[in-house]
Amino acid sequence: MTRVTIIAEAVVAERIIEDLLRLGASGYTRTEAEGRGSRGVRASEWEGKNQKIETVVRPAVAEAVFDHLVQDYFEHFAVIAYAHPVEVVRGEKYG
Amino acid sequence: MTRVTIIAEAVVAERIIEDLLRLGASGYTRTEAEGRGSRGVRASEWEGKNQKIETVVRPAVAEAVFDHLVQDYFEHFAVIAYAHPVEVVRGEKYG
Amino acid sequence: MTRVTIIAEAVVAERIIEDLLRLGASGYTRTEAEGRGSRGVRASEWEGKNQKIETVVRPAVAEAVFDHLVQDYFEHFAVIAYAHPVEVVRGEKYG
Repeated sequence: MTRVTIIAEAVVAERIIEDLLRLGASGYTRTEAEGRGSRGVRASEWEGKNQKIETVVRPAVAEAVFDHLVQDYFEHFAVIAYAHPVEVVRGEKYG
Repeated sequence: MTRVTIIAEAVVAERIIEDLLRLGASGYTRTEAEGRGSRGVRASEWEGKNQKIETVVRPAVAEAVFDHLVQDYFEHFAVIAYAHPVEVVRGEKYG
Repeated sequence: MTRVTIIAEAVVAERIIEDLLRLGASGYTRTEAEGRGSRGVRASEWEGKNQKIETVVRPAVAEAVFDHLVQDYFEHFAVIAYAHPVEVVRGEKYG
């Protein structure tokens, strides 16, 4: 399974969560964070409160989420996303 | 070393932390999270406030924690757990 | 890229963040956590509120951060740090 971490402005966090669930995630957690970042080439710097969204999904779902973020959010919003594999306790069933 | 992340209802978080320390963890962090999830096959959906517990332990301790969670919590409580290897800064000594 | 997690007493968190940015990180997030830990050999146990600082950086920056933490913080402050590789969504540019 793949754990995806997304750090986003509060204004888009709700919408990103809806997208996650629609793309196949069966759950998520969200925590308030404070921070600073750069979106890179087109970077408008952001600083202050943001939301950290985490979800554990199948690798194919992670790919779909990444593609979606790049297409629909990266140009206009401060969104950072990264992923790494995790071993999930057996007995669980994730989307 | 193995980083174990456990997401649990507030009602069992305290008990899980006691279990972690008893099973060999030398520390933990706990953060408030909001979220939504599914426990899988017997899934009662949960939604709302929960606690994210993180600990860095030896792989054998991680295994013991996972076994314990499956045996004592998975049937009756909304608990999600996953793990991945981490490199710990030298000079540290974890349980 | 490498994701570095640092757990530190509130009293040094601000200074560690300044160090991170000076050493090449282009951003970070910080969340409030509660917890308990041991610093190891010279361990003064700590318990209570602390800060979890996360940053995604190039491996060389992670190394520099780790060396710096060991040299300047480990002896006198309760600081725990660990790292693991992550895949970052393309389009991003991190320090």
